[in-house]
Amino acid sequence: MLAAHYEGSGSIRVRETEPRSPGPGEVQIAVAYTGICGTDLHILHGAMDHRVGPSAVLGHEMSGRIGALGPQVAGWAVGDPVSVMPLRWCGDCPACRDGNTHVCHTLTFIGIDSPGSLQERWNVPADVLVRLPADLDLAHAALVEPTAVAVHDVRRAGLLATESAVVIGAGPIGLLIACVARTEAARVLMVEPDSSRRALAVELGFETLDPSGCDVPAAVQAWTQGAGAAVVFEVSSSQQGLDTAVASLAVRGRLVVVGIHPPHRDVDLFRFFWRELTLHGARVYQREDVERAVELVADGAIPADRLISRVEPLAQAAEAFRSLESGGVMKVLVKCGDDD
Amino acid sequence: MLAAHYEGSGSIRVRETEPRSPGPGEVQIAVAYTGICGTDLHILHGAMDHRVGPSAVLGHEMSGRIGALGPQVAGWAVGDPVSVMPLRWCGDCPACRDGNTHVCHTLTFIGIDSPGSLQERWNVPADVLVRLPADLDLAHAALVEPTAVAVHDVRRAGLLATESAVVIGAGPIGLLIACVARTEAARVLMVEPDSSRRALAVELGFETLDPSGCDVPAAVQAWTQGAGAAVVFEVSSSQQGLDTAVASLAVRGRLVVVGIHPPHRDVDLFRFFWRELTLHGARVYQREDVERAVELVADGAIPADRLISRVEPLAQAAEAFRSLESGGVMKVLVKCGDDD
Repeated sequence: MLAAHYEGSGSIRVRETEPRSPGPGEVQIAVAYTGICGTDLHILHGAMDHRVGPSAVLGHEMSGRIGALGPQVAGWAVGDPVSVMPLRWCGDCPACRDGNTHVCHTLTFIGIDSPGSLQERWNVPADVLVRLPADLDLAHAALVEPTAVAVHDVRRAGLLATESAVVIGAGPIGLLIACVARTEAARVLMVEPDSSRRALAVELGFETLDPSGCDVPAAVQAWTQGAGAAVVFEVSSSQQGLDTAVASLAVRGRLVVVGIHPPHRDVDLFRFFWRELTLHGARVYQREDVERAVELVADGAIPADRLISRVEPLAQAAEAFRSLESGGVMKVLVKCGDDD
Repeated sequence: MLAAHYEGSGSIRVRETEPRSPGPGEVQIAVAYTGICGTDLHILHGAMDHRVGPSAVLGHEMSGRIGALGPQVAGWAVGDPVSVMPLRWCGDCPACRDGNTHVCHTLTFIGIDSPGSLQERWNVPADVLVRLPADLDLAHAALVEPTAVAVHDVRRAGLLATESAVVIGAGPIGLLIACVARTEAARVLMVEPDSSRRALAVELGFETLDPSGCDVPAAVQAWTQGAGAAVVFEVSSSQQGLDTAVASLAVRGRLVVVGIHPPHRDVDLFRFFWRELTLHGARVYQREDVERAVELVADGAIPADRLISRVEPLAQAAEAFRSLESGGVMKVLVKCGDDD
């Protein structure tokens, strides 16, 4: 079978690999689609070489059908359409014992710390499987995992139906958050400097703001009749996005920091005091987020066709990474096998 | 009657002032005690000259008895023991309309923006009155207002009975937070570099840590069997205290920033992501916090006698400010009149 291997220094090489039979408790998935995400690009450029092994197979946003069952697997059948929740936790650390397995002290991620789905056949422990509706397009289903991220972020915010939310950054995760937020909140505004990303947001029915040369906090205040935003999602990973977020929040507003900020950031804690603001960190998702994501992708709340910019065959996996990197696209999928 | 006036540039002068009769909706309080707080010291040194007028009378942590009723005041009688909740809000801004009157967009503070209680007789709107139990020592009752701050901070944290809390800074507010937290949480640890403050914390029954030459996050991790603290209260107003707080939190831990941080602070947002932390700003209190504070002072959960270091007569109000400033004391009260 074919598998796309990360060979270090920005290189992806697709080559023949011997498939392995699923072990006890495992299933073998015939992978249909794998989406490429920002984390995969970071890995491609060596940022996570301390975690990924040599010749690692990446990929964790996926869909497929069960191709074979290992011993001791119950409740699943060959042909079942599935995605995965690619997290492995210890079950025994303080976080796990408190029910926060998704923030386990020794959490590992399938597709980073162990082989991912950029291959035709992929063995995973059966307990990471996520059941998909029989009639769900498997290309759409490759968006379940990033949608689960968005569902989790929105749940962290505790958005109410009367509230207004601002999303800073209209990349794939920003757009998914906006789509999920729209199912909960009264109004959603997206802030994005890139005109083509703004155009897509408009096409998807969102109000948008170009932060270039615009006083975003003042505009958000006007948009909310002087209140400020009840919730802001910071998805730009920038100091400027963070500053804008803090300055745009209403009294008792909640900031969900979705973008990853490796450098320490300058934060206006006086504003947190003055307006009694709250900041929530958010990381991956929990099982209920994934299940909600399946529903949202299946019922069309996630406009999958508009978000999938390009599909490359597995043999061209390197091209999929290149096109994501060169910009001007949203989600890029790799078709790893049949989708029926 | 006597009143202590702030005359600018660090000067407090006590002089004879003509009392005014209470107007419609007002009561005149015969002030028993007024506590001096950190904000009063800031004002003394000119930091809030843009808010306090010339010859301002400071003071907002107080107790007393109603001395006279103005027209249109119902439900109160001369002689009733009272404290006040010294906030004035507009009732009409977005924050007020959402029920967050304590973070009103144009909130003003009695004792800063209007005359305070460092005088023998003090007129306030009847709606700021807080009823005190008949048998509550009025010196103790002067701690109701700072205790309400602590109650509010603990409520912001959402402390559970199974959780461990760390308080960084064992000044008056830190100790009050620890006392309130102890009524809710399983265990409370105080972090304080000053040995006399630590000694008082120990005397009040708290575990303590000296951060000088100690790895506080590691010690907190050991104290919590590897979990980290569920809640940390940052009461030191320092970058170092903030760093310690963020590094000491458990997965899903909540940081309540109590200390005021006028400069922007460096914040490890990656840690907020990695552990799904939450940061809450907190400002003053709501009516329910004040009512709970009265109960806690009355039932002895607040060790008022141990926290009140010194009581000065009104004529020596300047000395009260000086002694607070010179350190080595907790609460300093000014006795403004009879306490029976």
